[in-house]
Amino acid sequence: MKERKIIVVGGTAAGPSAAAKAKRTNPGADVTIYESSETISYGICEAPYAISGLIEDESKLVKYSPEKLQHEKDVEVKTLHRVEKIIPSKHKLIIRDFRTRGTFEQQYDKLIIATGSVPRCLNVPGEDGRNVFHLKNREDTQSIINYLNNEKPESAVIVGSGYIGMEMAEALRARLPEVMLLDQSSLPMEGLEEETRRRVLEELNNNGVQFIPDVAIEAFQQDGTGRVKHVITNRGAFESDIVILALGVDPNIELAKDANIRIGEYGGIITDQRMETNLDDIYAAGDCCEVQNIVTGKPIYLPLASVASRAAWVAGENAAGGHAVFKGAIRATAVKIFNLQIAQVGISSEEAIENGYKIVTDVISASSRNELMPGSEVVTIKLIVDKSTRRLLGANLFSCCGAVLRANTLAVAIQQKMSVDEIARLDLIYAPPFAPLWDPILIAANQVKKKNH
Amino acid sequence: MKERKIIVVGGTAAGPSAAAKAKRTNPGADVTIYESSETISYGICEAPYAISGLIEDESKLVKYSPEKLQHEKDVEVKTLHRVEKIIPSKHKLIIRDFRTRGTFEQQYDKLIIATGSVPRCLNVPGEDGRNVFHLKNREDTQSIINYLNNEKPESAVIVGSGYIGMEMAEALRARLPEVMLLDQSSLPMEGLEEETRRRVLEELNNNGVQFIPDVAIEAFQQDGTGRVKHVITNRGAFESDIVILALGVDPNIELAKDANIRIGEYGGIITDQRMETNLDDIYAAGDCCEVQNIVTGKPIYLPLASVASRAAWVAGENAAGGHAVFKGAIRATAVKIFNLQIAQVGISSEEAIENGYKIVTDVISASSRNELMPGSEVVTIKLIVDKSTRRLLGANLFSCCGAVLRANTLAVAIQQKMSVDEIARLDLIYAPPFAPLWDPILIAANQVKKKNH
Repeated sequence: MKERKIIVVGGTAAGPSAAAKAKRTNPGADVTIYESSETISYGICEAPYAISGLIEDESKLVKYSPEKLQHEKDVEVKTLHRVEKIIPSKHKLIIRDFRTRGTFEQQYDKLIIATGSVPRCLNVPGEDGRNVFHLKNREDTQSIINYLNNEKPESAVIVGSGYIGMEMAEALRARLPEVMLLDQSSLPMEGLEEETRRRVLEELNNNGVQFIPDVAIEAFQQDGTGRVKHVITNRGAFESDIVILALGVDPNIELAKDANIRIGEYGGIITDQRMETNLDDIYAAGDCCEVQNIVTGKPIYLPLASVASRAAWVAGENAAGGHAVFKGAIRATAVKIFNLQIAQVGISSEEAIENGYKIVTDVISASSRNELMPGSEVVTIKLIVDKSTRRLLGANLFSCCGAVLRANTLAVAIQQKMSVDEIARLDLIYAPPFAPLWDPILIAANQVKKKNH
Repeated sequence: MKERKIIVVGGTAAGPSAAAKAKRTNPGADVTIYESSETISYGICEAPYAISGLIEDESKLVKYSPEKLQHEKDVEVKTLHRVEKIIPSKHKLIIRDFRTRGTFEQQYDKLIIATGSVPRCLNVPGEDGRNVFHLKNREDTQSIINYLNNEKPESAVIVGSGYIGMEMAEALRARLPEVMLLDQSSLPMEGLEEETRRRVLEELNNNGVQFIPDVAIEAFQQDGTGRVKHVITNRGAFESDIVILALGVDPNIELAKDANIRIGEYGGIITDQRMETNLDDIYAAGDCCEVQNIVTGKPIYLPLASVASRAAWVAGENAAGGHAVFKGAIRATAVKIFNLQIAQVGISSEEAIENGYKIVTDVISASSRNELMPGSEVVTIKLIVDKSTRRLLGANLFSCCGAVLRANTLAVAIQQKMSVDEIARLDLIYAPPFAPLWDPILIAANQVKKKNH
């Protein structure tokens, strides 16, 4: 294989994965990552646990330093370098070096775009307060930890109650007496089933987090030092010493758009199953991309590290001359909220209806273990089933124990397009300390199966 | 539907399941269970935990009394009644009533045989000692508990190191200072992979259970009161105050054999996928039957409650006029050994080779959670893969945490005949408190996939 120059734009998650995979696939390739910040390979998903103090040393979230990636994976890393323009016709990049402040041109044979996502903003007055934080990168994590350590806030407002909002509520509650969660919706965790969302609300209440529903933020009122003291909303003013904005993310696609790379309905880069964009020799992976939803067959925006990693491997392998395929994702997510495990796999009832499915759903609660065994907890499962094909489209699971790994079992069933009848017949483990004679999965499938007749 | 008389022979596990399912399927049917002992619906799988004291009240292992089953499921139960003969040509049974000691004839329209299994014996002198126990039914459980409470033994010998042997080792170790596990094999838990068996041995050693390999039992030496004091073996005499025989079970098929019902290679009743035997209107389910191994397509003897329950539902439904199908089982089992979770799904390397597969295997160890998170443990997974089709045939998993429910995910993959390539691409959950970015399942599949190229 001819030596080729593979350039990766972005070093947070998908970038280093793609680069390392490219090098493994084609050890003769010359692989370079350009990253505009100082840090690569940062475990932002673990950040809430570094903020809570559960992970004591925040620096452990950096999995690879540039030197380590160079040393262990033979991938060159250029931090503080921003790729400013792609010139596809010339297979060339224009790159700014923040140290010299100058730009230079760089040839590539294959390019992998892994520019990730940008956190959403509210665009209201006062949002730039120095105690208003996103949680998107190492700088954010460190700023929050420093602020907590140095300024010892006593009350926090989190805006947005998705996965990050939930994790931050738990993290801050471990450090502050007063945590409020403000959301535009009537229940936390939009996108989950109503049964799950009600249980989440209960868990928040039980653990001293106040959930304020139906909130529209109007402004952040700052004191003289640039610090927000009150969050002004349609439902009144809330005092707060620290504000976290957890509003979700959008694909970071300025660079791609400027190069006329095709962008999809959800604002993400569109690739084929080889993770190649509409432009020759330009691949993309990670939070900057849309992916195929295996359940619906349509594109979906799923900014998840698990999806990014798998897609990055495919992009890296193919950029290096391989023939890998990324079939997409189903959405397989979980979050810990105090003592509660919450998992979602596949699509929600709402998405199913939006996608034209007629659905049957059912909710069951059953023991996680043989019910006589100590440590047995109730697992609740909601299954969402296509009425016509009887195929499982999605599920929500929650419990104090044994929900998340069970969700993976259903994740396989969804990916295999199994019907509830097939799921109801599955041979699963019975062992009193771990699972009851009829696993909650079997109980759920047998239950919804009856309803679907 | 014409009212029909459905008779079920045997009331331990499969019998009550089949009976209740028959009644649900056809509420007009007249369903009767004949059981030769006093107890029905006994959770023998939980017995080790009642013996250890973890489950304090042994009577809770009885899920249904005859009266409760009658009341809740409208199934008539005749305990202390032994079905002594089936006369298939006349659709008739000869039944002995232990109370009156007499026999009577009973007509049936449909018959379900659920006679279960019988524990294996050694057939050596002294095996009838009053402190030598099997663990097969309620009487055994109660006898062991009474013996432990009343005679306060200080040393125990368990013969056989399968699932029951393991559970009894842990149970007795919770109550006695000295527990020995004697086995004819060189390592505990024959049938599991060697890596797993070595880890089991380590766990036994760490918890004060002495494993004696390569043992052939020659005799049990009794004292004057009919109590065994020494177990005489090819490796010397072992002193013991209580002996548990955990040698496995054989199908209980005397009744079926006498009626010319077809018996298979492993000594179990052969049924079709409707759980009907070779004789019209006679069904069978549970430990008295062989089932189809979904992996190999051949019959297998799998005396497991999980398999029995599913098969019993099918037998019950069909006996009642329904059209259910039992596709078989893969062997999905797990056991807790002190702090260790052990799970096996599908066939072993040895079985694979016996069945003519050329196999590739690999063993990986990976974190059960994000490795920075407290509570993360190492999960070890061995995958057994068919070299030609690349299909997953079986797996062993062990860990202090997160092995068993992960095994169920692989159980689905095996049942769906997924290749390691497909498994390596699965979309599974990443959430730091529950699972790492690349779940151990994905790491294992990616690893063995490489080896298979």
